[in-house]
Amino acid sequence: MTRFKGIVFDLYGTLYDVHSVARRCDALLPGRGHEMSALWRQKQLEYTWLRSLMGEYAPFEAITEDALRYTCAQLKLSLSEQTLTALSDEYLTIQPHAEVPAALAALQQTGVALAILSNGSARSIDSVVAHSGLQDRFAHLLSVDEVRVFKPHPLAYALAETKLDAPRGDILFVSSNPWDASGARRFGFPVCWVNRSGNAFDELGQKPTHVVPDLSGLVALCC
Amino acid sequence: MTRFKGIVFDLYGTLYDVHSVARRCDALLPGRGHEMSALWRQKQLEYTWLRSLMGEYAPFEAITEDALRYTCAQLKLSLSEQTLTALSDEYLTIQPHAEVPAALAALQQTGVALAILSNGSARSIDSVVAHSGLQDRFAHLLSVDEVRVFKPHPLAYALAETKLDAPRGDILFVSSNPWDASGARRFGFPVCWVNRSGNAFDELGQKPTHVVPDLSGLVALCC
Repeated sequence: MTRFKGIVFDLYGTLYDVHSVARRCDALLPGRGHEMSALWRQKQLEYTWLRSLMGEYAPFEAITEDALRYTCAQLKLSLSEQTLTALSDEYLTIQPHAEVPAALAALQQTGVALAILSNGSARSIDSVVAHSGLQDRFAHLLSVDEVRVFKPHPLAYALAETKLDAPRGDILFVSSNPWDASGARRFGFPVCWVNRSGNAFDELGQKPTHVVPDLSGLVALCC
Repeated sequence: MTRFKGIVFDLYGTLYDVHSVARRCDALLPGRGHEMSALWRQKQLEYTWLRSLMGEYAPFEAITEDALRYTCAQLKLSLSEQTLTALSDEYLTIQPHAEVPAALAALQQTGVALAILSNGSARSIDSVVAHSGLQDRFAHLLSVDEVRVFKPHPLAYALAETKLDAPRGDILFVSSNPWDASGARRFGFPVCWVNRSGNAFDELGQKPTHVVPDLSGLVALCC
């Protein structure tokens, strides 16, 4: 049985594969779908940080569409409003990484409370989780929308501590995003970094407590 | 004569060419100098935003070196400590864009106060400006180090308003970085975006007041 009172997962990239969107992009921009989806994702993240710093919070879905508009303008790609909306809505039906359903089931069986803390709005989180049929795995689906500032601001992580009603040292935070893992570690969570692609960790003055290649590694750590 | 009481310039990218660092990178990683310098610059910016959000301010020079360490790890490039330091110090001697010296001279002759507001530390700003021989052009060299939070946080822009002792509506802010131009516009400065490369503007809910292809365009606007 795991020593943690709760395990809190990031959603985009950690449980669900954001680059599954690349396939749809590739149909629009043949041979450049990866470039398009990578720039879109990069700008999506940048805009969450920049808007938080500027004091101009906007919901994640609006930011996702703004980032797509920028990407199209930068790549000189003209899309209809209908296609823009359809592409943005792809983020509502992204798929979990292959090992995720079995790993969540195994972790849930240990009795630990599982939760998601995401930059996405409650509507997006609900949609993605329901679409993948994993809604019964989680005790809490938490959106930063409630505090109107994005991760890695400490207020975002504090939301998980409050809702799980456990000291931060007893909550394991799991993310594949090094900047998110750094913010969570800075906040005081023990952190498991999921490094699927053999990337370097960000140099933000923090180190992850654990590193695993995917969620099967987390099961081995906790069960 | 310009209608502005002051013109405040961003330094990196706007007055000085950050990608001049690419040549040194190319010597270390032949054929991939641009990729290396672009990733380094990207991470340098990200770390200023992320550390500001995390509440973990660090001076720009430390962040620049951290971003280089990440870049080397990610590109699997092994550099000695000596080379790392020498490369980071390249940011102290970057060159102005070609049209900048003449443009600043022309603007200064109108009698308007010129200033720099940069994420760099006072030491970096002084070093870069002195190395290019442009120190007599500026009435103020301002570093966000004084408020310990990076642009686009409003406190960073407020520093320029305070030091120039003029209402924000009378100060023209000039930047080639769309995120910086957006932050300054949100703060309330009229903003001139210098778009040297025909890029798309960021979708952060703001539009620049003026757009010019380089600083000669700014002279045409103000003189």
